[in-house]
Amino acid sequence: MPDWTPDLSGPVPLYRQIAAYIRGKIGSGSWPPGTKLPPQRTLARELGVNRSTVVAALGLLAESGLIEGRHGGGTAVTRPGNGEGGRGSWLAYVEEGRHYPNLPAIQAINRLEFSPGLIRLGTGEPGPDLLPGTEMAAVMAELAQGPLPLPYEEPLGSLRLRRAVSAELARSGINAGPSSILILSGALQGFQLISLGLLPKGSSIVLEKPSYLYSIHAFQSAGVRLHGLAMDDRGLIPEELEPAAARTGAALLYTIPSFHNPTGIVMDLERRQQLMEKTDALGLPVLEDGAYQELWLDAPPPPPLKAMDRSGRVLHLGTLSKSASPGLRIGWIAGPEPVIQRLADIKMQTDYGASSLSQQAAAIWLEKGLHDRHTETLRMKLRERRDLLLALLERHFAGLASWNRPSGGFYVWLRLKHPLPLPKLFHAALAEGLLLNTGDLYDRSDSRHLRLSFSYASPAELERGIARLAEVIRQFGGQV
Amino acid sequence: MPDWTPDLSGPVPLYRQIAAYIRGKIGSGSWPPGTKLPPQRTLARELGVNRSTVVAALGLLAESGLIEGRHGGGTAVTRPGNGEGGRGSWLAYVEEGRHYPNLPAIQAINRLEFSPGLIRLGTGEPGPDLLPGTEMAAVMAELAQGPLPLPYEEPLGSLRLRRAVSAELARSGINAGPSSILILSGALQGFQLISLGLLPKGSSIVLEKPSYLYSIHAFQSAGVRLHGLAMDDRGLIPEELEPAAARTGAALLYTIPSFHNPTGIVMDLERRQQLMEKTDALGLPVLEDGAYQELWLDAPPPPPLKAMDRSGRVLHLGTLSKSASPGLRIGWIAGPEPVIQRLADIKMQTDYGASSLSQQAAAIWLEKGLHDRHTETLRMKLRERRDLLLALLERHFAGLASWNRPSGGFYVWLRLKHPLPLPKLFHAALAEGLLLNTGDLYDRSDSRHLRLSFSYASPAELERGIARLAEVIRQFGGQV
Ligand SMILES: Cc1ncc(COP(=O)(O)O)c(C=O)c1O
Ligand SMILES: Cc1ncc(COP(=O)(O)O)c(C=O)c1O
Repeated sequence: MPDWTPDLSGPVPLYRQIAAYIRGKIGSGSWPPGTKLPPQRTLARELGVNRSTVVAALGLLAESGLIEGRHGGGTAVTRPGNGEGGRGSWLAYVEEGRHYPNLPAIQAINRLEFSPGLIRLGTGEPGPDLLPGTEMAAVMAELAQGPLPLPYEEPLGSLRLRRAVSAELARSGINAGPSSILILSGALQGFQLISLGLLPKGSSIVLEKPSYLYSIHAFQSAGVRLHGLAMDDRGLIPEELEPAAARTGAALLYTIPSFHNPTGIVMDLERRQQLMEKTDALGLPVLEDGAYQELWLDAPPPPPLKAMDRSGRVLHLGTLSKSASPGLRIGWIAGPEPVIQRLADIKMQTDYGASSLSQQAAAIWLEKGLHDRHTETLRMKLRERRDLLLALLERHFAGLASWNRPSGGFYVWLRLKHPLPLPKLFHAALAEGLLLNTGDLYDRSDSRHLRLSFSYASPAELERGIARLAEVIRQFGGQV
Repeated sequence: MPDWTPDLSGPVPLYRQIAAYIRGKIGSGSWPPGTKLPPQRTLARELGVNRSTVVAALGLLAESGLIEGRHGGGTAVTRPGNGEGGRGSWLAYVEEGRHYPNLPAIQAINRLEFSPGLIRLGTGEPGPDLLPGTEMAAVMAELAQGPLPLPYEEPLGSLRLRRAVSAELARSGINAGPSSILILSGALQGFQLISLGLLPKGSSIVLEKPSYLYSIHAFQSAGVRLHGLAMDDRGLIPEELEPAAARTGAALLYTIPSFHNPTGIVMDLERRQQLMEKTDALGLPVLEDGAYQELWLDAPPPPPLKAMDRSGRVLHLGTLSKSASPGLRIGWIAGPEPVIQRLADIKMQTDYGASSLSQQAAAIWLEKGLHDRHTETLRMKLRERRDLLLALLERHFAGLASWNRPSGGFYVWLRLKHPLPLPKLFHAALAEGLLLNTGDLYDRSDSRHLRLSFSYASPAELERGIARLAEVIRQFGGQV
């Protein structure tokens, strides 16, 4: 989103306003020498003007020598005469640094999710009408009664919240006292802390393929390799584990046993037991991601792996993002105390703990039973949306694709009848106002899946979006 | 803080309760095989029982084979018979991982800050009576009116908050539009993002010595080296810069020009100008930490370096932690847009953005002028506390130490007359109920400074604490 748009009714011509705006960016160092300007078309769209207006503005700036054409095409802020430019500029570092950038498609999604008007068919969060606005406002009102938790918090996070999380975990069969729990600024942070704090560079992780973990770079940026294992509709295939672990010397298994992202699959009880036995025999620690486990739609899933763990071999991740609110940025990790303490120490060096307002809001939310009540309602609504999505797929995708019937979580893993170049499909759909999460985000080699989410788009948007998506794919199929 | 204490009035003998508690920890995998138990004395203190009770409980557990003496001394959870134990346990990873642990003293401080009863003489946050409890409660009440920001936020952070921060920065002379600003989960996170996202491994940073940056490991853990430069009472000595930058091939200069942590020094205007010229000539990017800049007590400091920057050579860090509330975990970094976007991309991979509740609370706080009003009051109160601390030092430390008169911020950098083994002093003071931040945290080779803070302890605590500290140092001096 642009932070400024021209004053359409003012006396200054638009192109002059725009030239002045860009001159300000350059003069203040916001766009230092060498900065590439956005394409004219993008500028025009963002500023809400015709492309010719942008051309006139850029012409003015080029005349005064502030911008110039670049060798590779496009326009950039002029570097000083000696050609050195950017000396002492932070710009030189933008492509340095060890951490990989997000996948370009993820960057685009992160940005486009804030463009109004798009139908978001893959977004992994509850839509605005599924979020507990009223209930959370009541929590805020209670918070306002004070006393507010304004100082820095303890390394593990607020004891009150850890107690509430411990009680919540107990209900899923997990026995973890408050000192075995670290509060995270969202579950995502757990990956970062583990990759910085526990795994030596060059380690390997085995995990389901596809997996959410392929869409982020926390481990890869730390020099940790991922090795995907095949799944079937009962989850990870335990027989895959031993040869893969042997071949890769894997340091840990990452798994999303309940309502897997992106496939929606639930690992059944027998598989869970086999997995615990195999990993025990192999001496393989397990990182269990329970992000969706409470969002069952038909029947509760089998107990989490952590509930079967007697020897501290499982670290368990949880979050409030998928039901209460992603914006709270509250997650947790439970496991052996020495490990939790190591992670807490890294967390203190990373951000000094999660927002204490969020922590207190989360504690109230859990303590008062608001969480359970809301999750109950959410399940009901998600059930309706799942059924709607499945009906729409029947109507529009028969012959075009096949799909599963997820028993929980947010996702349908749509398998296209024919492989397609997914990045092109992404753009073709975008041109039609549809924002997609394509399968290659979750498995680099994939060319025939889409992660469809029934959690975000409203029923009306789903109706329009799925019909339009089928058209795009049909047309697209013709063009390939 | 322990998450459980025995029931003193119940029918079950204390030692049995404690044995059952530890058995639970072992049985649930919270203390997996190989976990070292805390020392008996620590257990006794934390559980609020006599040491003999702990000994009896451990005896019971040893009898049943659950715990055993360790070779190096102490007690640990028994490993399975084959001696392998810990196979497949996360425990094996606790000493792996690339990120350094916090300094042991920082770990102790992080923990001890939550032990009631200690007088915290070095803590770098506003004390409970200086935090704006009432005003922040009003912000919460406004938040509760809704609509609440419950979804994930944009990569740069909430536009509303970025607008408010931009306006705030403008008042210190910094011209940074909302798209040049990234909202951080506290300024500390900025170091982590820069070290992951901008600096190649093996880079060097030049910085003031001593410095806050020595007390955290964000850069060192990423393989970046720190080279300290001498300061005098006008701040960093610009002549130091050129030879050091040449020798080390420094990638950037980190500086806290206003009310430096830990020395309290303000870089004067002339030095700032020299610094900007030198770094320009050297092509050296600058990371300016403005954490304390608004907390002037006598007169406003010279403009921030970022206000003198026309070429995008300065990244500027700010935070609400030192005035409004550390618990909000809201900071920001301002700089060239391409750099800010790279950092935002890493942030999205780290924690998906700061708590949106905190962001909205911060926006309201700034927009309504509450921040300025509170900072004004805070300055007044800090002035009183500074003057009290200086008076107390006159009374108790004449002949024992020398010190500066800080014109802002939180700290007096006390220089002891004789070098002392600071880690021992830390423990001696702790035994007297005083929590210290010793100089070696900010300069590994230091043996004669203490960072005293007038922001945290109440006036009564300062009175008692400083008198007691003088005694400890006197006695201690005798023992060396
Ligand atoms: C499987 C899985 N784990 C973890 C997360 C991270 O959630 P958060 O950081 O919001 O708690 C997500 C979010 O998409 C997810 O799908
Ligand atoms: C100089 C300096 N910079 C940054 C910080 C980090 O502050 P926060 O992460 O709470 O915003 C501190 C806190 O002690 C500090 O002293």
